[in-house]
Amino acid sequence: MALYRTIADKLARQIQQGAFQPGQRLPSVRVLAQRMAVSVSTAVAAYQLLERRQLVAARQKSGFYVIPPAALPAPARAPGLRPARLQLSGRVAAVFANVREPSLTPFGLALPAPDYWPAAALRRAAGAVRRDAFSRSLAFTAAPGDFGLRRQIAMRMLQAGCLQSPEDVVVTNGCQEAVTLSLRLLTSPGDVVAVESPCYYGFLLALQSLNLRVVNIATDPLTGLDLGQLQRAAERWPIRACICSPGCSNPTGAGMDENARARLLALARRCDFHIVEDDILGELAHGETRPPALKARDSDDRVLYCSSFSKSVAPGIRIGWVAAGRHRQRLIELMTANSSAAAGFSQLLMREYLQSGHFDKHLARIRREYRGNLQMALATIGRCFPPGTRATSPRGGFLTWVELPRGLDAHTLYERALAEKISIVPGGVFARKGFQNCFRLSCALPWSSAVNAALERLGRLASRL
Amino acid sequence: MALYRTIADKLARQIQQGAFQPGQRLPSVRVLAQRMAVSVSTAVAAYQLLERRQLVAARQKSGFYVIPPAALPAPARAPGLRPARLQLSGRVAAVFANVREPSLTPFGLALPAPDYWPAAALRRAAGAVRRDAFSRSLAFTAAPGDFGLRRQIAMRMLQAGCLQSPEDVVVTNGCQEAVTLSLRLLTSPGDVVAVESPCYYGFLLALQSLNLRVVNIATDPLTGLDLGQLQRAAERWPIRACICSPGCSNPTGAGMDENARARLLALARRCDFHIVEDDILGELAHGETRPPALKARDSDDRVLYCSSFSKSVAPGIRIGWVAAGRHRQRLIELMTANSSAAAGFSQLLMREYLQSGHFDKHLARIRREYRGNLQMALATIGRCFPPGTRATSPRGGFLTWVELPRGLDAHTLYERALAEKISIVPGGVFARKGFQNCFRLSCALPWSSAVNAALERLGRLASRL
Repeated sequence: MALYRTIADKLARQIQQGAFQPGQRLPSVRVLAQRMAVSVSTAVAAYQLLERRQLVAARQKSGFYVIPPAALPAPARAPGLRPARLQLSGRVAAVFANVREPSLTPFGLALPAPDYWPAAALRRAAGAVRRDAFSRSLAFTAAPGDFGLRRQIAMRMLQAGCLQSPEDVVVTNGCQEAVTLSLRLLTSPGDVVAVESPCYYGFLLALQSLNLRVVNIATDPLTGLDLGQLQRAAERWPIRACICSPGCSNPTGAGMDENARARLLALARRCDFHIVEDDILGELAHGETRPPALKARDSDDRVLYCSSFSKSVAPGIRIGWVAAGRHRQRLIELMTANSSAAAGFSQLLMREYLQSGHFDKHLARIRREYRGNLQMALATIGRCFPPGTRATSPRGGFLTWVELPRGLDAHTLYERALAEKISIVPGGVFARKGFQNCFRLSCALPWSSAVNAALERLGRLASRL
Repeated sequence: MALYRTIADKLARQIQQGAFQPGQRLPSVRVLAQRMAVSVSTAVAAYQLLERRQLVAARQKSGFYVIPPAALPAPARAPGLRPARLQLSGRVAAVFANVREPSLTPFGLALPAPDYWPAAALRRAAGAVRRDAFSRSLAFTAAPGDFGLRRQIAMRMLQAGCLQSPEDVVVTNGCQEAVTLSLRLLTSPGDVVAVESPCYYGFLLALQSLNLRVVNIATDPLTGLDLGQLQRAAERWPIRACICSPGCSNPTGAGMDENARARLLALARRCDFHIVEDDILGELAHGETRPPALKARDSDDRVLYCSSFSKSVAPGIRIGWVAAGRHRQRLIELMTANSSAAAGFSQLLMREYLQSGHFDKHLARIRREYRGNLQMALATIGRCFPPGTRATSPRGGFLTWVELPRGLDAHTLYERALAEKISIVPGGVFARKGFQNCFRLSCALPWSSAVNAALERLGRLASRL
């Protein structure tokens, strides 16, 4: 990474951590250059990058100042709902369909924009598969999936602190099938499953289609699942499984710290429920390395770890997996009964791509980009949204969860935004109840001035609610 | 097709239809040439082809004689079982795993051998996708799937007599997911589903995993479902759905005639159940054209039509579909909840391949090959298996259902065959009970003399049971 970028990132972190307060003047270019032992032009470049990211503003002849960022939202109130079957309204399906309309500025789409796919490296990998293994790509590769791919996946999981053998891995059609199969393995219709609230709506769809009863657990937008509430729920109701995303939650971007993860696992053991760990955003942690997955601490296969490459590589490849441990054989049977196998070409494409060694380079790039995009989005939200608006500042992924002042209706904002060719996902989609004044904003698109202008427009729409 | 092939095929059909009896002398080369208005050398070539297919044998200075073919098995006895949940034994999973062992002569594998994939045309199509639509292949193509592919599929369905619009088609991960989603749409756990007996074991796995109760309907290896028994079952039990393969059944190769199809649909209307039509072997009808699907007669969306390209193109592509009509919206929701979408590359590959116009040429070739392979297999079975062995002579696909004389155990034969590097699938796998003396034999592999020798070896193993 260029030196000025490293310095800009360090400063951005210090700003986020509060070392420099909103409105505060930053060190002069000369002082920064001296302190960091770099040239003045490097210091200037670092400030200019922060300016482009809208974290700092230059004032004539006075230096650079911290722009007030959006504040973090308050922890979600405890929904305190009894377990119940879901009856998602037609609104959810409509939102699903609308956010994919290609003419919109896609703040509603939690998928990386094409600019963030490693398209050239994937094309090379596709060429290699077509040239050297095409016949194999046409052959039936039954569950658990191609061995070479499973080996690559097991190696990736090492970086998440998980010692899995290729035998532990079952390849699926994306993370959605991984989670669906895990739920089918762990539960019967009518069973109670605990979910984060707010929770990714794909999981709510799966829970509804499997006729499971859902209990919502309040989830702090910063620190994740409210473990006290989860414990009370588990003492009161026969919870069979808990779906959660300890690394980086969709929609809030919340992450659980080491201590909370240990407590979650201990609670699962004590109250005898399983955990379906969704780690689809795990590879997008903003740091140099990713924190260990919950699965890394799992000694008795209480965690079914689910992930895919849809957020970290490209969404159309549809290769996901479950690290299922001792549940492996039953999971293979369920996979065979559900869809038989994942596509041969996709399996070999991902194997080839992972073998090429390009993934880490790609991750370093998109982690940096997403962090930068989020910083810029938060700065714009701070400037352009109604006073009292709060937004999460996640340590991974590309999503921020925006809480409008109470009384403002995010579904109305979503509808008015659609009319102005902007998509967001209103909060009501992510739970049975509540979050009417919240929405999810995705920053997985190159942050051009047009994109920033769209966000400013969204802010003006919100101000007029 | 070469003229001698056309003549050989006509003669083969006459032999199968009983116009020439086993042991009977066929017309002399001179008479045949005269009757068909061809040269003597063409007539000789036709007889030599039939000889290679082991339908006729030459006797020195006496001409060509009909080799006794294997007889058709008697209709399966009515299983007469009450609806019950399935508890498939570990045997099924073991068979599943064993038949895929690549070192075996794969009579157990109901998948086309690589020689029967249109690999060159698919490679061209893959090249075109990689060159012209690679970025699109990496994009998320949500359910119901790529429009161009759905248009091609709707056009294919015209050939099966079905007037479907692209809007009616929902693309799935193979036929297995198509059938699973259809079952989930039509039933709740505990509901009763009627199945053919014997029935494809993938469907039994799906029914078991969905916790459905199954009632077996006797299925004639020639004419398909016993409609009288289906009617009695529907009058007695609350049947919600019936899975069947009216075009060509797996494992028996049975097909229902026009009259039986009309009666089946009328029965479904009268007793108010739905039909999940599995037409995965439908394109492999041995005639010049394929008969219409059951769906073609369906005026009130009582039939959910499921298929894929796994048997007709290549098994690793994993593109299936449901023609769901008015159930479309709910099916899209279930697909979204189950696995989100099918792989982008596979969808575009199949679209490109179907657009290329190669499919019909390919089908003409494999239909001819499978018919020839089945003829040769039946001749060998007639010569080499214990007296009293019967085998079906299907009008489509590549499967024959072999019934050994009563008392001979096909599971033992399966085990001994494995030891000799030959796979078959024993009949017990295809039902809750019965079929102990039956097995499924797949002829989707080039009929070399080594393959024929393996079948002869299998016959010797059967004789020693």
